[in-house]
Amino acid sequence: MNKVHVVGAGMTRFAKSTRTLKDLAAEAVTAALADAGVTAADIQSAYVANAAAGLTTGQEMIRGQVVLRPLGFEGIPIFNLENACASASTAMHLGYHAVANGQYDMVMCLGVEKLATEDKTVGMAAIGTAVDIETLPELVAQMGSGPDSSKRSLFMDLYAQMSRDYMDRSGATPEHFAKVVVKAQGNGALNERAQYGAHLTVEQVLGSREIVAPLTLLMCSPISDGAAAVVLMSEERARREGRAGPRVRASVLVSGNHNDKSDPTSGSTGHAAKAAFESAGIGPEDLDCVEVHDASAPAELMAYEQIGLAEPGEGPALLDSGRTALGGDIPVNTSGGLLSKGHPIGATGLAQICEATWQLRGAAGPRQVDGARIALTQNGGGWLVDDSAAMSVHILSAD
Amino acid sequence: MNKVHVVGAGMTRFAKSTRTLKDLAAEAVTAALADAGVTAADIQSAYVANAAAGLTTGQEMIRGQVVLRPLGFEGIPIFNLENACASASTAMHLGYHAVANGQYDMVMCLGVEKLATEDKTVGMAAIGTAVDIETLPELVAQMGSGPDSSKRSLFMDLYAQMSRDYMDRSGATPEHFAKVVVKAQGNGALNERAQYGAHLTVEQVLGSREIVAPLTLLMCSPISDGAAAVVLMSEERARREGRAGPRVRASVLVSGNHNDKSDPTSGSTGHAAKAAFESAGIGPEDLDCVEVHDASAPAELMAYEQIGLAEPGEGPALLDSGRTALGGDIPVNTSGGLLSKGHPIGATGLAQICEATWQLRGAAGPRQVDGARIALTQNGGGWLVDDSAAMSVHILSAD
Repeated sequence: MNKVHVVGAGMTRFAKSTRTLKDLAAEAVTAALADAGVTAADIQSAYVANAAAGLTTGQEMIRGQVVLRPLGFEGIPIFNLENACASASTAMHLGYHAVANGQYDMVMCLGVEKLATEDKTVGMAAIGTAVDIETLPELVAQMGSGPDSSKRSLFMDLYAQMSRDYMDRSGATPEHFAKVVVKAQGNGALNERAQYGAHLTVEQVLGSREIVAPLTLLMCSPISDGAAAVVLMSEERARREGRAGPRVRASVLVSGNHNDKSDPTSGSTGHAAKAAFESAGIGPEDLDCVEVHDASAPAELMAYEQIGLAEPGEGPALLDSGRTALGGDIPVNTSGGLLSKGHPIGATGLAQICEATWQLRGAAGPRQVDGARIALTQNGGGWLVDDSAAMSVHILSAD
Repeated sequence: MNKVHVVGAGMTRFAKSTRTLKDLAAEAVTAALADAGVTAADIQSAYVANAAAGLTTGQEMIRGQVVLRPLGFEGIPIFNLENACASASTAMHLGYHAVANGQYDMVMCLGVEKLATEDKTVGMAAIGTAVDIETLPELVAQMGSGPDSSKRSLFMDLYAQMSRDYMDRSGATPEHFAKVVVKAQGNGALNERAQYGAHLTVEQVLGSREIVAPLTLLMCSPISDGAAAVVLMSEERARREGRAGPRVRASVLVSGNHNDKSDPTSGSTGHAAKAAFESAGIGPEDLDCVEVHDASAPAELMAYEQIGLAEPGEGPALLDSGRTALGGDIPVNTSGGLLSKGHPIGATGLAQICEATWQLRGAAGPRQVDGARIALTQNGGGWLVDDSAAMSVHILSAD
């Protein structure tokens, strides 16, 4: 296995916008190439993630070629990848393994998403295709989504149900979920690429409009557009060319499997994290910063337990301890997370890799984690039976 | 690089149908697993291609998980891949390299497609997303598609334009294109999985309804549903477990680049074929049978020249010689090709691999090429600027 480094990272600001897929991709790709000090002609293969643009823009099938050809990418293999909200991590996973296995020594991974549409229900309906659509009526009935369900993502109903279960198991309260949001928005306020970012109070979060109990509006990740890209290089080539960047220590992708609610490590996040720690030869205690898939606020607390930052049921206590805040010993979602930075679903996984890269380079500015050496990212997508349809965990180290 | 063998192949009959994605996938996957003598639990990673179902069925994002989970696939990485009509070859390419590189020793590649819809224009419009949709109005204007264009694929306009250019360069006539169809339908009549298959005359083909001059209805591949799957195994594991099957000698995927009309080897097929021959250490003269992407009849003649079976301009002469017919020394599209076997776009590339597998095993029944030892498949997808957006060439050998 060759060692693989992230030698370039670039992303747009995440936002609801009128920008096109091409425009978003161009900004992130150009920034990643410039950061790596290479050109499109140097890239040997491209892994392009998008989840929703087929339904929000009508562009299907060759989305990667459409956004990359105008930027000078010709002739190379281009892979168009979907895995719902884990699409970009899937691109990262394939790009990493292609370099690790020696097939290429320089590749690009891009995630780009267009979710904001004039008719808001189009974007919402697109997100709803991240389940088995034959089961949609049944899911909606189970969730009690009611007539307003087209105004929100089905996933917020799923998260609400999981949150109620989690409250029963862990003693978490809506106040805990609100504290996650306060932390996320505070971090987002330090990130110029974040969609939101603000200094909020628990009361403000609890007082925002109810989406599905116990979730309020501010506990749900927003509709976002955006793009994120990285350039990966083999260690040998990076050394030869004088490039540097964090090393990818583990890249794991799994699909869902049987998920025992009473054991937070039994589902896809637990499986992926375990495999990633084994691959990297480290444990949760070695992490300096973490980005988790907080598509809703309670998911961050669940992730603490699934990844092994906290014992089962101890997620709320870890949050209360302040250890996962900036300045704590294991800051989580320094970028603002999906809640504050935004969640352009096909770009999110690579935005997490960008944040990890910047933290490990000491380039995260006002949200820098002092002396960060090892980072983990967790990115899930879709829902099937009783688990995420896709789940990815990456571990990066400073060198 | 580990040697990789196709130890299992399975496909549905191709047809316009009311079958679902799940149902089609289940038949192909079950057949491929049974052919390999393995179960879903043995598969370490799955590469799933689909191009159009997002628009024809509404299912996006996690199409692979949706069709595979009911068949017992849990926990493994599942990659959802698009590359227009080359989607399934893209899945094959990634699956092959994952085994060749030693990441896995048993993987499955699946292509599944649902194009036939009650409202025929839905399937046609889906195919039309295999271009940069921003350029659609301009393309339609260039092509002079006119008011009936929603009743046919834009690609037939593109092919018609290429066919007229090709006639100018090579002296090919509509009779040549009709002869391609007569050959394809004759081969299809020997293939129980083909959508069509008939003993036609050149006059019947020329006399069928004009789609866009010089193409008549029978010169265009049909709307089809279907699925095709293969199980790939490393040679070491295949030997250990007593499995056998053709060896994959080359797997190349490229995207489009500058395509000089006057040089048939300058475009994506020429580039992919050259790279595949170099990788396999053979030349066109070593091939025993070939499957090419005859989405329209003239494309077969062009492919002869692009692959190197014929010199530039000599495609029509090669056809006239009878050498590419069953019984000739280099039979092309023994399966019936896209024209007769059908063209469920996200499944086509793997259906070609299935045909190559059966030919190299001596299991192709009445269409068997005597003593076939080396086969090539060519599968293209989408259109951008002046070339296919994606192009894949595979070479397989009997052992």
